[in-house]
Amino acid sequence: MNREWEELQEILQKASMYRAALSLMSWDSDTIAPPKAAEWTARFVGTISQEYFTMMTSPRVRDLAAAIDPETLDHDGKALLRHVRRTVENLTSIPAEEYRAYQELLVRSRATWKHAKDTNDFASFAPVLQQVIDTRRRFAALRAKDGETPYNVLLNDYEEGFPAAVLDPFFEKLKACVVPLLQRRTEALHERIVTRTSPLEKQKAFCAWLAAYAGFDPERGALGETEHPFNCTMHNHDSRLALHYYEHDSNSAISSTMHESGHAIYEQQVDDRYTLTFLGGGASTAMHESQSRFFENHVGRSRAFWEPIYPTLQRMQPEAYGGVPFDEYMRELNVAVPSPVRIEADELTYSLHIIVRYELEKAFIDGGMKAEELPAAWNRKYQEYLGITPPTDTAGVLQDSHWGGGLIGYFPSYSIGSAIAAQVEAQLRRMMDFDAVLRAGELHKICGALREGIHRFGASKTADELLRDFTGKPFEPDDYLAYLERKFRV
Amino acid sequence: MNREWEELQEILQKASMYRAALSLMSWDSDTIAPPKAAEWTARFVGTISQEYFTMMTSPRVRDLAAAIDPETLDHDGKALLRHVRRTVENLTSIPAEEYRAYQELLVRSRATWKHAKDTNDFASFAPVLQQVIDTRRRFAALRAKDGETPYNVLLNDYEEGFPAAVLDPFFEKLKACVVPLLQRRTEALHERIVTRTSPLEKQKAFCAWLAAYAGFDPERGALGETEHPFNCTMHNHDSRLALHYYEHDSNSAISSTMHESGHAIYEQQVDDRYTLTFLGGGASTAMHESQSRFFENHVGRSRAFWEPIYPTLQRMQPEAYGGVPFDEYMRELNVAVPSPVRIEADELTYSLHIIVRYELEKAFIDGGMKAEELPAAWNRKYQEYLGITPPTDTAGVLQDSHWGGGLIGYFPSYSIGSAIAAQVEAQLRRMMDFDAVLRAGELHKICGALREGIHRFGASKTADELLRDFTGKPFEPDDYLAYLERKFRV
Repeated sequence: MNREWEELQEILQKASMYRAALSLMSWDSDTIAPPKAAEWTARFVGTISQEYFTMMTSPRVRDLAAAIDPETLDHDGKALLRHVRRTVENLTSIPAEEYRAYQELLVRSRATWKHAKDTNDFASFAPVLQQVIDTRRRFAALRAKDGETPYNVLLNDYEEGFPAAVLDPFFEKLKACVVPLLQRRTEALHERIVTRTSPLEKQKAFCAWLAAYAGFDPERGALGETEHPFNCTMHNHDSRLALHYYEHDSNSAISSTMHESGHAIYEQQVDDRYTLTFLGGGASTAMHESQSRFFENHVGRSRAFWEPIYPTLQRMQPEAYGGVPFDEYMRELNVAVPSPVRIEADELTYSLHIIVRYELEKAFIDGGMKAEELPAAWNRKYQEYLGITPPTDTAGVLQDSHWGGGLIGYFPSYSIGSAIAAQVEAQLRRMMDFDAVLRAGELHKICGALREGIHRFGASKTADELLRDFTGKPFEPDDYLAYLERKFRV
Repeated sequence: MNREWEELQEILQKASMYRAALSLMSWDSDTIAPPKAAEWTARFVGTISQEYFTMMTSPRVRDLAAAIDPETLDHDGKALLRHVRRTVENLTSIPAEEYRAYQELLVRSRATWKHAKDTNDFASFAPVLQQVIDTRRRFAALRAKDGETPYNVLLNDYEEGFPAAVLDPFFEKLKACVVPLLQRRTEALHERIVTRTSPLEKQKAFCAWLAAYAGFDPERGALGETEHPFNCTMHNHDSRLALHYYEHDSNSAISSTMHESGHAIYEQQVDDRYTLTFLGGGASTAMHESQSRFFENHVGRSRAFWEPIYPTLQRMQPEAYGGVPFDEYMRELNVAVPSPVRIEADELTYSLHIIVRYELEKAFIDGGMKAEELPAAWNRKYQEYLGITPPTDTAGVLQDSHWGGGLIGYFPSYSIGSAIAAQVEAQLRRMMDFDAVLRAGELHKICGALREGIHRFGASKTADELLRDFTGKPFEPDDYLAYLERKFRV
């Protein structure tokens, strides 16, 4: 191994430690830190972030990353170098002065968005959103290669290998599948969302039990409480779930427990050789999302999974489920009802929410659409795809924090992840009697197969490599479309 | 202001951010972090600590700290420079190579102590404890000035201005007061420790209420759970309590809530001019301990404090206190019963536990006593001062983690703090009708007086300066002795 590589490795090891420390601070901020501490705490978090940024953008790291010949490295080394080059490129492509100005713009933009959402006042948000959009487009253009469109640059930041040329046909197929399914179902079933009431302490006890049952290792993780559920990982021996319990909607915490457990199981099952390195996390955003969706939907809404444990749920939360027949509970878990808010959406309508956002992002980054045109365009698409018009902009175009925070091009990862989840389930069904395994409560067999085929590699393989090696084919949405057809056709 | 001072300030600001980040990581480790994560998490915590250490021991910081003339600085500047010189001196007095070896010895020593305590096997701990003692003595000798004894060097590390020449007469007076008080009380009252049983959730709810009632600001702090209660402060806007709730001893969490609230109120009331600087914490260990003892004992065991809120306690924890008359509860809170374990000791016997440790530390650092002689000496002193012999070494000489962790010379701070608490109470009684204020539930008047007289200054004044300015006299134990006499004479 050459000396330049060793030197780079040493810097990366230290940088990984900083990343882990920053993860922990962000966990703390979002779970237990007191509200009035925020502005002060931001100072020391800022100092540690700045240190990480300085480390990764130093001329020495740039020189080393550029100088090392990947051909002299083994497989893991190549993967690591690829990650580093990507990180360095992203962090250094923008002049420091402009980067700082953009960070300040984002602070203003986030606050303006929050206020606009609280007061249902899109007009006050439009000018600053337009600035964010223009800046993102300009920064993207700086990095565009060979006539790449700015939106493709942004898409590539979050998920490699999914430019508009891949996403357009994917989303067209998905739309062609889901829109009529939903329409027929709405007309035939008149489904409605049922909520159940259960004391918070009993919900907490059940969700802790459920996470462990699904395969989350509580001795290498923890559970906390927060506003919007998330998974936070320091390293594979400490991956945590932050959940939100609604007293009057106990199904909500059950779904998020399964979803966040999927993320955490992925992280916990990464091999120790990658602990606290740049290869220690998941392969990509969409691959991560595929694991959370797999546990949330393909496992956590299935009859076979709940059959053996529904009596436990009834015993642990008798107020909510004691008198509810199993069939009724299964129906509740699998309704498909159009509603305006993405994060409350069911499995079928979820992808329509994503498609709306994808089409609008493409329009305002590459197509010349203006921020001020967004509310009308948003509502038109909701009416067309979901058959509803959001009652307010708060429950419409203002609902997500992403755009105001500069996250443009991120939404498609959610749908790519959903499709990968179905592709993974199909492969597992070729490997084992999936339903029998679930009915026997042998989740370790499923977790074991995912560990061997996907999780243990961390980020040392790309999502594409993992999919080809595990399922025998590249990404393709047919399993997902078939799954939706099978499940939601009436 | 001169340029060297500005340069030093900049480095210190960054170092303070690292200290705050390290505090947060230590909070996390002791409250929520999963057990199996510890060895991995130690790596990134180690990286951040090392960064702090490197920053503070750099030749540049040493040069700056030495070069700056304190006479060119204002009061806060002088205080800051004094802290920095002390920190730099402590961190750099030992050759780096020996320091690393000592850190490794401590890892071994802590583990050996833990195992020895678990198995009641002092003999297995004695050799490594002897090494720790010898190393501490040797390091102390390197820093001794003008014929100072090694033990005085160690004492000065934890509390300035309290060498053996001050502590000897203090502890002699204390012993002469407490030993006969305890003996007469034991003979006359036949008191015993009563424990009460209460559901954990109700204990948590009451303790959260109690902390806020006492003056802790829950919007600038948080409550967590841990094995041994502690207070952890990131900065004055985020000071937290970690508590332990015993289902079958609900009085325990009440005492520790008051104790840790005292620490947190001190930290929360430091002026914003010191936030996230080296002057942002308490003035000294003993001064900090005085505030926790003051809230735990002088406020939290007093009749006047509980009179208005005992009905609340009875309502919130009916299982434990519903049928207990107020007088009986007050008796329980104020028993004095010799028992072998320091952290479970009552207010009267507590100082005897400290005196035993002080006398033994002096003997094994300065007096040639060997580690192997400790169990016999320990038991003799317990019999002499407390009238009991610990049933095992686990409940005797092995009970505390301090010595195995290298903390030698720290114990006296606890008793100095208890004496300062009484001196502070006496001053408050000169300033206000203390009991009437408590009976009226006007804790804000007490917190306000402490803020104005002590807390707001952070570490910009020494403990000695604070005591003189607030009480009009230097440290002296008469108020403490009078308080004990008044409270415990029968």
